[in-house]
Amino acid sequence: MVMQKATPHALDALIQALRVLPGVGAKSASRMAFHLMQHERAGALQLAKALEHACDHVRHCVTCHTLTEFEICTMCADPERDRSQLCVVETPADQAAIERTSTFRGLYFVLMGKLSPLDGVGPNDLGFAKLSERCADGQVQEVILATNFTGEGEATAHVIAEMLKKRGLRVTRLARGVPAGSELEYVDLGTIAHALVDRR
Amino acid sequence: MVMQKATPHALDALIQALRVLPGVGAKSASRMAFHLMQHERAGALQLAKALEHACDHVRHCVTCHTLTEFEICTMCADPERDRSQLCVVETPADQAAIERTSTFRGLYFVLMGKLSPLDGVGPNDLGFAKLSERCADGQVQEVILATNFTGEGEATAHVIAEMLKKRGLRVTRLARGVPAGSELEYVDLGTIAHALVDRR
Repeated sequence: MVMQKATPHALDALIQALRVLPGVGAKSASRMAFHLMQHERAGALQLAKALEHACDHVRHCVTCHTLTEFEICTMCADPERDRSQLCVVETPADQAAIERTSTFRGLYFVLMGKLSPLDGVGPNDLGFAKLSERCADGQVQEVILATNFTGEGEATAHVIAEMLKKRGLRVTRLARGVPAGSELEYVDLGTIAHALVDRR
Repeated sequence: MVMQKATPHALDALIQALRVLPGVGAKSASRMAFHLMQHERAGALQLAKALEHACDHVRHCVTCHTLTEFEICTMCADPERDRSQLCVVETPADQAAIERTSTFRGLYFVLMGKLSPLDGVGPNDLGFAKLSERCADGQVQEVILATNFTGEGEATAHVIAEMLKKRGLRVTRLARGVPAGSELEYVDLGTIAHALVDRR
């Protein structure tokens, strides 16, 4: 008799497949697989269907580059949004974070990443040409750079700002400063320094 | 025009479906969904297939109750395992942990849970009758209780021990003591106390 591994193949394959999820290693994957098979078969089948449906239907909005089911995403197609303001973000999650504040009524451009030369991500991968073209539609008057305040996010914002300022567009950046609800004693030096420089 | 939510439906459905995974909340689920759609479409489709295949094929071994593709799992069917020893564990993950040590050559019974009256998990849910029947096959001579050393795991071990001792079986429990590689100074009091009592 040929010896087989103790864990059956279908489970092995499932554990291996689950590792495609970000942040899920071997242990989490097997915990997930056992949990699904023991307690959540209906949920597992629904997840399989949702994955297939999303892979078939989700694509990039031709206008803002975000993930959507439509050729033009619902936000870009919404006539009530202010077409004179364009907010540049790294990811759909960042876009969602700004939307939750309900303080921005303009449109977005989603880079789907940030400049990262070490990982081989350059201006072409982030669609800078498309962004430049998008800004030349005659309606955009202000571009708000809302990339993250990390080294790579700052560099991305800087390169975009240089590119768009040449075209005579007004380019702004989210304000840096002390977070709401925080005590100065516990805020890092760099943040306080920026808040002092940018005081109003 | 009917207003639609900014996140498209297929993505929403995927984010919702991902929350079936243990330990995955709203934020992780959306991070996972965006990652899959942006970088891992092939992996996402493979995950969908693995989920469907596992749901169709994975069931409980009729002998040891673990998750398997076969009527009798490969371990129970392996003629080289020692049929006189039966190790009782809570989950397939615990079984895998013991297998990794390569020090046990007997068979297993997987409870797929632990006694937990507050969650409504009683002896019937864990198949105690089946375990009792399994131990009466005339081959099992020793039952090793390897449930976790938590309150519920200890209670489960205690109830099984009482049940099986009545039938005249030898029932043992994994040794409690100081973990390998640890320094006494940092080991908790309860563990040291047990290690003293169980000294050899």
